[in-house]
Amino acid sequence: MVPRYSRPQMDAIWSPAERFRIWFEIEALAAEAMAELGTIPAEAARAIREKGGPRAAAIGPAEVEAIDAIERVTRHDVIAFLTFMGEGIGPEARFMHQGMTSSDVLDTAFAVQLTRAADLLIGDIDALLIQLERRAFEHKLTPTIGRSHGIHAEPTTFGLKLAGHYAEFVRNRTRLVAARAEIATCAISGPVGTQASVDPRVEAFVAGHLGLAVEPVSTQVIPRDRHAAFFATLGIVASGIERLATEVRHLQRSEVREAEEFFHPGQKGSSAMPHKRNPVLSENLTGLARLVRGYVTPAMENVALWHERDISHSSVERVIGPDATIALDFALARLTGMMEKLVIYPERMQANLEALGGVVHSQKVLLALTQAGMSREAAYAAVQRAAMATWTALGRPEARDFRTNLLADAEVTALMDAAALDAAMDPARDFVSVDAIFTRVFGRA
Amino acid sequence: MVPRYSRPQMDAIWSPAERFRIWFEIEALAAEAMAELGTIPAEAARAIREKGGPRAAAIGPAEVEAIDAIERVTRHDVIAFLTFMGEGIGPEARFMHQGMTSSDVLDTAFAVQLTRAADLLIGDIDALLIQLERRAFEHKLTPTIGRSHGIHAEPTTFGLKLAGHYAEFVRNRTRLVAARAEIATCAISGPVGTQASVDPRVEAFVAGHLGLAVEPVSTQVIPRDRHAAFFATLGIVASGIERLATEVRHLQRSEVREAEEFFHPGQKGSSAMPHKRNPVLSENLTGLARLVRGYVTPAMENVALWHERDISHSSVERVIGPDATIALDFALARLTGMMEKLVIYPERMQANLEALGGVVHSQKVLLALTQAGMSREAAYAAVQRAAMATWTALGRPEARDFRTNLLADAEVTALMDAAALDAAMDPARDFVSVDAIFTRVFGRA
Amino acid sequence: MVPRYSRPQMDAIWSPAERFRIWFEIEALAAEAMAELGTIPAEAARAIREKGGPRAAAIGPAEVEAIDAIERVTRHDVIAFLTFMGEGIGPEARFMHQGMTSSDVLDTAFAVQLTRAADLLIGDIDALLIQLERRAFEHKLTPTIGRSHGIHAEPTTFGLKLAGHYAEFVRNRTRLVAARAEIATCAISGPVGTQASVDPRVEAFVAGHLGLAVEPVSTQVIPRDRHAAFFATLGIVASGIERLATEVRHLQRSEVREAEEFFHPGQKGSSAMPHKRNPVLSENLTGLARLVRGYVTPAMENVALWHERDISHSSVERVIGPDATIALDFALARLTGMMEKLVIYPERMQANLEALGGVVHSQKVLLALTQAGMSREAAYAAVQRAAMATWTALGRPEARDFRTNLLADAEVTALMDAAALDAAMDPARDFVSVDAIFTRVFGRA
Amino acid sequence: MVPRYSRPQMDAIWSPAERFRIWFEIEALAAEAMAELGTIPAEAARAIREKGGPRAAAIGPAEVEAIDAIERVTRHDVIAFLTFMGEGIGPEARFMHQGMTSSDVLDTAFAVQLTRAADLLIGDIDALLIQLERRAFEHKLTPTIGRSHGIHAEPTTFGLKLAGHYAEFVRNRTRLVAARAEIATCAISGPVGTQASVDPRVEAFVAGHLGLAVEPVSTQVIPRDRHAAFFATLGIVASGIERLATEVRHLQRSEVREAEEFFHPGQKGSSAMPHKRNPVLSENLTGLARLVRGYVTPAMENVALWHERDISHSSVERVIGPDATIALDFALARLTGMMEKLVIYPERMQANLEALGGVVHSQKVLLALTQAGMSREAAYAAVQRAAMATWTALGRPEARDFRTNLLADAEVTALMDAAALDAAMDPARDFVSVDAIFTRVFGRA
Repeated sequence: MVPRYSRPQMDAIWSPAERFRIWFEIEALAAEAMAELGTIPAEAARAIREKGGPRAAAIGPAEVEAIDAIERVTRHDVIAFLTFMGEGIGPEARFMHQGMTSSDVLDTAFAVQLTRAADLLIGDIDALLIQLERRAFEHKLTPTIGRSHGIHAEPTTFGLKLAGHYAEFVRNRTRLVAARAEIATCAISGPVGTQASVDPRVEAFVAGHLGLAVEPVSTQVIPRDRHAAFFATLGIVASGIERLATEVRHLQRSEVREAEEFFHPGQKGSSAMPHKRNPVLSENLTGLARLVRGYVTPAMENVALWHERDISHSSVERVIGPDATIALDFALARLTGMMEKLVIYPERMQANLEALGGVVHSQKVLLALTQAGMSREAAYAAVQRAAMATWTALGRPEARDFRTNLLADAEVTALMDAAALDAAMDPARDFVSVDAIFTRVFGRA
Repeated sequence: MVPRYSRPQMDAIWSPAERFRIWFEIEALAAEAMAELGTIPAEAARAIREKGGPRAAAIGPAEVEAIDAIERVTRHDVIAFLTFMGEGIGPEARFMHQGMTSSDVLDTAFAVQLTRAADLLIGDIDALLIQLERRAFEHKLTPTIGRSHGIHAEPTTFGLKLAGHYAEFVRNRTRLVAARAEIATCAISGPVGTQASVDPRVEAFVAGHLGLAVEPVSTQVIPRDRHAAFFATLGIVASGIERLATEVRHLQRSEVREAEEFFHPGQKGSSAMPHKRNPVLSENLTGLARLVRGYVTPAMENVALWHERDISHSSVERVIGPDATIALDFALARLTGMMEKLVIYPERMQANLEALGGVVHSQKVLLALTQAGMSREAAYAAVQRAAMATWTALGRPEARDFRTNLLADAEVTALMDAAALDAAMDPARDFVSVDAIFTRVFGRA
Repeated sequence: MVPRYSRPQMDAIWSPAERFRIWFEIEALAAEAMAELGTIPAEAARAIREKGGPRAAAIGPAEVEAIDAIERVTRHDVIAFLTFMGEGIGPEARFMHQGMTSSDVLDTAFAVQLTRAADLLIGDIDALLIQLERRAFEHKLTPTIGRSHGIHAEPTTFGLKLAGHYAEFVRNRTRLVAARAEIATCAISGPVGTQASVDPRVEAFVAGHLGLAVEPVSTQVIPRDRHAAFFATLGIVASGIERLATEVRHLQRSEVREAEEFFHPGQKGSSAMPHKRNPVLSENLTGLARLVRGYVTPAMENVALWHERDISHSSVERVIGPDATIALDFALARLTGMMEKLVIYPERMQANLEALGGVVHSQKVLLALTQAGMSREAAYAAVQRAAMATWTALGRPEARDFRTNLLADAEVTALMDAAALDAAMDPARDFVSVDAIFTRVFGRA
Repeated sequence: MVPRYSRPQMDAIWSPAERFRIWFEIEALAAEAMAELGTIPAEAARAIREKGGPRAAAIGPAEVEAIDAIERVTRHDVIAFLTFMGEGIGPEARFMHQGMTSSDVLDTAFAVQLTRAADLLIGDIDALLIQLERRAFEHKLTPTIGRSHGIHAEPTTFGLKLAGHYAEFVRNRTRLVAARAEIATCAISGPVGTQASVDPRVEAFVAGHLGLAVEPVSTQVIPRDRHAAFFATLGIVASGIERLATEVRHLQRSEVREAEEFFHPGQKGSSAMPHKRNPVLSENLTGLARLVRGYVTPAMENVALWHERDISHSSVERVIGPDATIALDFALARLTGMMEKLVIYPERMQANLEALGGVVHSQKVLLALTQAGMSREAAYAAVQRAAMATWTALGRPEARDFRTNLLADAEVTALMDAAALDAAMDPARDFVSVDAIFTRVFGRA
C-alpha cells in the first residue's frame, strides 16, 4: 500500500523483517516440540532458540537484503531464510524445519500476521464506536429531516442516523471477530498435509504457543476458503465505511450544509475557489472502500487451488494481505477522526426540515384523517391535494404552507379542526420511539 | 435463473405468488398486533385475516397478472397489492398497512425468502456432507499420490482428500448458518424508521411470529450490510464447490483417470468423439461458481444507500436474490449427486503413485538420512542426485528407479543399507496420522 | 433476466426457439458449403435446407420441449437438436454436421446472438444520443451552478452537463461497435479446431453468409477473451448510465430540485407520503448498473479454459449472455425515456446559483485581482477573506454578499472599483467557451 | 506494488519525482501558451521554464519530502507543489497555473503516466509475440494430443496451440493500443471545465506538446469511463496471461510432462522434495492475473463521480494506477521469459498421443464410415463399440487397441478393410489445415 494510506503499526506487521521473525518463532517452537518428543536432540532445539533468537531479533534492512540475495540463487524464500539462520546457528541448524514444508512456515506466519491485523482493525472499530456513540447521544434529539430517495420524508434525529451506523459497525466488529477466528489456524503438517513426517503434537504445540487453533486438514496449505471469508469481511466493513462517508458527503453539499468535515487551519480547499470546504475525507474514504472491495474476488478465486496445493494464491496474498488490511486500518482511523470532529449544524437541519412548507408532516396527517374515519383512499387524496398545492407553489409569492392548504379543504375540516391538525402535526410525535431504539442499540437511552 | 439451473423447491420461494402470500402474512400479523394494542379495531384485524387469508392463498398466475395490471397504473408494487387485497377484504382493508411503509413489507418479506433459501442451502450442504463422509471413509486408506503444483509430491489417501473438502463444507455450513442469522431480521418501523407511526410492539409481534429478530435500527430499510454478508457467504460456498469440482476435473483427465463422473446410459459425450467421457458436471459447477461469485460485489455496492434509504438496491436484489440462491442450490445438489456416484479407480491411483520410479518417497529418505547423521545439505544433495537420475531416465531403456539409484550412492550406503532404506520408504509410514486427522474432522476414524 | 427488466426484441434473441433456428441456419449453410465442395451430396444439402428450413421455422414451445426431452436422455443439447431435425429431414440428415463439433454450432450461434444484441444496444444508444443532444441544445445556455465535491464551484450550463454525458455515450457507442466486432466471428473448425475434418472453405462460407469474420484460431471454441472484452464493454456502458442516473438523483434532491423525473398521472410516490416524487427510475438504473458490472468478472474468469477447451464457460454464458444484454437494453431505453421527459427547472438552477451570496464568483475575482497586479498569495487571501465573511454569515441577519464584502476591503478597492468588480463577476464570462465546447462535441453550436 | 513484482522502467513512471516533473511540464507548457496568447507576460513564461525547469529536473527524495511537508500544512498536493516551485522561480511564479485547477494538472499528468505505461505494456506484448511466434514455428508440426474437457480428443500440433495464444495476444495488443488512445487526452479547462478562465487554445497547445488529444468535455476532470476502459483492458490481457499460464501448468503436470518451465541451476523446487520441478512461474502468473482483474471493478465504480467531479476516484487511482500497470508489466515480462525458455518434450507428447490405444482417431474413422455409406447413427455406434472396448481394457493384459477392435467388427469390415482403415487413421490427415491456419495468424506458414 502506498505510504499515504499506511499507518505505522499495521505497516510493521507486514515488514519483511517482522515476517522473518515470525518464521523464526514458528521454527523455534517446532524444534522445541520435536525435542520434547525426542525427534531431535534437546540441545539442537536449545541452540536454535538461543543462537537463532538474537539473530532473528536483529534482522534489519541489511539482513533482509542478505536473505533476498540467497533467494535470488535458490529461488526459494524459505530455504533462503533457513540458510541465513543456519549460518548463525551452526550445525544444529540441520534439526530445524525437520519434516516440515515451506507452507507450514508460510501459512502459519500468514495466520499470525492476519490475526494481528485483525486485532488492530477490531481496535479501530472500537475507537470508531466510541465516537459514534458519543455523537449519537449528543444529537439524540436533534431534529433533522429523514430522506428516502434523497427526498424529504419525515423527521428523524441526527442521533438516530448515527445510531444506525453504530449498529452497523457493531455488526462489523462481530464479523471481524469471526473473520479473525477463520484465519487463526496453524498448520505444521508436512508434505501434502499427511503429518507423516511431523507429529501432530508438534502442530498442537506451535499452535498453542501462537494462540492459534490447529487446522483440521491442511493439505500442505491452510485451506483458502478461510482467507476468502476474511477478505470478504474486509469488503463488507469497507462498504459500511462508504455508507457513512456517503452520508457525510450528502450532508456537506452546498444545498444541505447540515454537517461539515473539520477544516484545518492552513488547509486550502481548492487552488482556485477559496470559499470551498470540500468533503475530501469522506470522498477519499469512498475510494478506499472501492479499493478494499476489489480485493475480495481475487481472494475468492484463490480458493480452488489444484490438488493438495499450488502456489497461485501467493502472489495475490503478498499484495492484498498488506494492502487490504493497511487500507482498511487507515480508512477506519480516518473515519473515526472525521466523525470525532465533524461539525454539525442543528440550525441548518431545522431550516431544511421546514423548507418544504410542512409537507413532510403529511404521513401524520394521513394517519389522523384515517383514524378520524376517512377512508384510506380519500385521506390519501386529501393529503395529496394539499401537499401538491404546497409543493407546486413553493418559493413563489402565492405559496401557502401545508397546514394552510389543509385548513382550506372542506373534506379535511369536516373531520379535523385547526387544533386537531396541530396536534396531529406535532413534531414531538416523531420522536416517541427514539429512546426505545437507542436502548436496543446502546443498551441505554 | 434459467430453468436449466433451477430446482422446484428453491424456485417456489421466489415465485410472485409466494411473495404476495408472504406480504399478506406480514400485513395480517401487523394488523393483529395493532388490534391487540387497540390501534385498529379488532374486527378489522379479523376481517383482514379471514377474508384476506383465503384470497392470498388463492393467488395464482391470474391474480399475479391482476396485481401487475394495477401496478402498471400506480407504478408502485405494494400499493397495487394492497388495492388488490382491499377489493377482497372490503372497507376494513383501510386498517391494513397503517403507519407502515412499503419497505416494512418488502424488506421483511425478503428476509423471510432469504431465510427459507438459507434453510434449503443448509440442507443441501447436509446432504453433501453425508456423501463426502461416506466416500471419505470408503477410501480412508486408498493410497493416491498427493500433488503440489500439479507435481507428484508424497503419498496421501483419497479419503484424506475428501476429508479436506468435508471440513471445508462443514465450515461453509457454519458460515451459512451465520449468514442466515445476518438476514433474519424484521423491520416494521414506518417512514424513515423512527417507529413514530407504528409501535415497536407491532414489529416485535410480527418478528416473533415469523421467526425473525427485530432490526435494531431500520432506517425504513433493513441495512444492506446484512445482505452483503449473506451474498458474500454464497460466493465463498461457491468457491468451495469450484475447488472440489476442479479436483474431479483433474482426476478425470485422460492422463490421470483416477476418478470419473458417472456416465449415464444413453449419455453422449460428444457429437464427434464417442469414446469421450467428459467431466461436464464439474466443469458446469466451475462456471456456476463464477456466476455466484459475480453477485457478491453488486451486493456490497448496495450497502451505501443514500440517507435513510434509496431504492437502488431493489433491481439488484430482484435478480440476485433468486439467481444466487437458485444457482447455488442447483450446484450443491449437482455436486452431491456427482460425489455420490463418482467412479473411483484405486488401481489407477496406485499406478500413478508408482509412475515416477519412486522419487515420491524422497522426503522420507531425506529425513532418514538426516536422522542417520548426515547434514541436511548433504542429505538434500544425495537425495537430489538419486532423484534427478531417476527422473531424467524415466521412460527410457536405461531407467533405474529411485531405490536402485540410492543404493548405488556410496554416501547413502555409508549410513543406510537396503533394509534401512526399505524401512524408510515403507508407504505405511505415510498414513500414520490418517486416523488422527479423521478424528479431528469426523470425530471418529 | 426477470420479465420486469426485459424488452421483447432483446428477449426474442435469447429464446430457445430462436437459438435452435440459428443452429439450423449454421448447419444448413455448412451443408451447402460442403455440397459445393463435393464433400456431401448436393441433394443432401438441398434436403436439409428444404425439409429442415420449415421444420426449424416452425419451432415453438412444443418443439422446444420435444428437443429438451431428447436432451434429457442424450445429455447433449446439440445431439438432441440434430436428432429432432433428423426426424423431419429423413436419411439425408446424416450429412448434416459432418466433421463438425457441437462448439462449431454453439459458438457461432452465440456470436450471432451477441452481434444482434449489440446491434440493438447500439440502436439504444443512438436513441439516447438524440435525446441528450436535443436537451443539451435546449439548455445550452441555461445557467446552473457547477459543483465539485458536491460543493458549489462556478457557474456552468445545464447544456454543458448534458454535452459531457453525450460525449461519454458517443464513446460508449464506439466501444460497443468495437465490442461487436470482437465477438462477430465464426468457427466451423471441427474437433480441437484443426480443421482436419472440415474444410476451411466451409467456415468461410458460413461466416460470409452470417456476416461474421472467420476466427483465425479456434481451438474448437471461439477464444473467450473476445467475450470478456464484450461483457467488459457492457460494464463500462452501465457505469456511464450510473453516472447520468446519479446526476439526476442529485438534481431531484429536495434541497436541489433542479430537475425531476416525469411523474406519471396515477403514479404513487409512496404508500405513506403522497407529496413525494422519488427519482425511482434513476435509482433503478443505478442498481441495474451494478448488476451489469457484476457480469464482467465471470466473463473474464471464462478466458482461461483448459487446453483446447472445457465447458465451464457455458453455464456462465447461458445466464450472462441474456441477462447482461437484456438488462442493459432495458436500462438504456429507460434512461432515454427518462431524459426525454426529464422536467427541468431553470429558475431553481438560478436560485441555487445565487444561494451562496455570490462566493461562486470568487475565481473570476481572483483572476481579476491577479491581473490587476496583486500577487497570487495576496489575491487569494483577499478573496478568501471576503468569501469566508459571506459564507459565515449566510442566512443570518448580518449577512452581506460577496460583492459587498469585497467592496469593503481596502486591498481590493485599491486595485478595483465597483464597476471593475462587476465586470469581473459578469456571469457571461463563464460561458465564453460553451460554443467552442459544443462544437467539439456536436460538430455545431 | 511490492518490489518483488516491479520492474524499474515501469516503476519509474510512478515515482513521486517523476510525477512532479510531469506536473511542471504541464504548468510550463500552459504558461508558454498563455504568454503566446498574451494572457501572461512572455517573461513570466520564460522565467517559469528557465528557473523552474532545472528545479523540477533536480527533484529527488529530499525535494519530494519538502513538497510533502508543505502538503501536510496546506492539505493540498498541487498547492504544495506550486509553493515549492514558486520558491525557486520567484515572483513570476504567480503567473503559473493561472485560471487552472488542480485537476487540470493531475488528470493530464495521469494521462501522461498511463500512456507511457501503455507504451511499455505494448512493448512487452511485442516481446512476447516474438517468442510465441518463434516457438509456434519451431513446433508447427510437433504432434500433440488436443484435449477438450481435459480428455484426449484428436491430434493437433504444439505450434497450433501457440498460434492460438499468439492470436490472442495480437488481439490484446490491439486492445491495449485502443486503451492507450482512450486515456491519452489532456484537460486544461479550469473550474468545472467551462474553459471560462483558461482559453481552449492553451489546452490545445499543451495537448499537442504532450502528444495527447484534447478532451472534448472535461467537467474539471477527465471523464473516468476512459480509465475504466483502460483498466478493463488490463484485466482482459491478464486473463490471457492466465490462459497460457494454465496451459503450461497442465503440460508440466507429472502425468503429462509435455513441457516444463526452465529450471535454473541452483534453484530448489521444494525444501523437502528435491525431485520436484514446479511450474511456479505460471502459478505465479495465475495469481497476478487475479490481482490485475481485481482492479477492474474499482475503476468502473470510479465512473459515476458526483456532478462536475468529486475526488473519490483519487485514492483508487493512486493505488491501481501503479499497481495494475506494474503487475501487468512484470507478468508479461515473466511470461515472455518463461515461453522463451520453456522446455518442450515432443517425445512425451507423442507418447501421450498414443496412450489411449488409438481411440483419439475415432472421429476420422466415424467420418470414413459415414462416407463409406453407413448411417451416422450406425457409424457412431460402431465407433463407440470399438472405442469403449479399447478404453475399458486399457492397461490390462487383455487390452487391444482401437484399430484391432475395429477390424474385429463385422459391420466395420463390411465397408472398410485394414488398408482403408489405416488410410482413414493416418495422422497426417489431422494437420492438413495447419498451414492455412498459420497463414491466417502469422501471414505466413
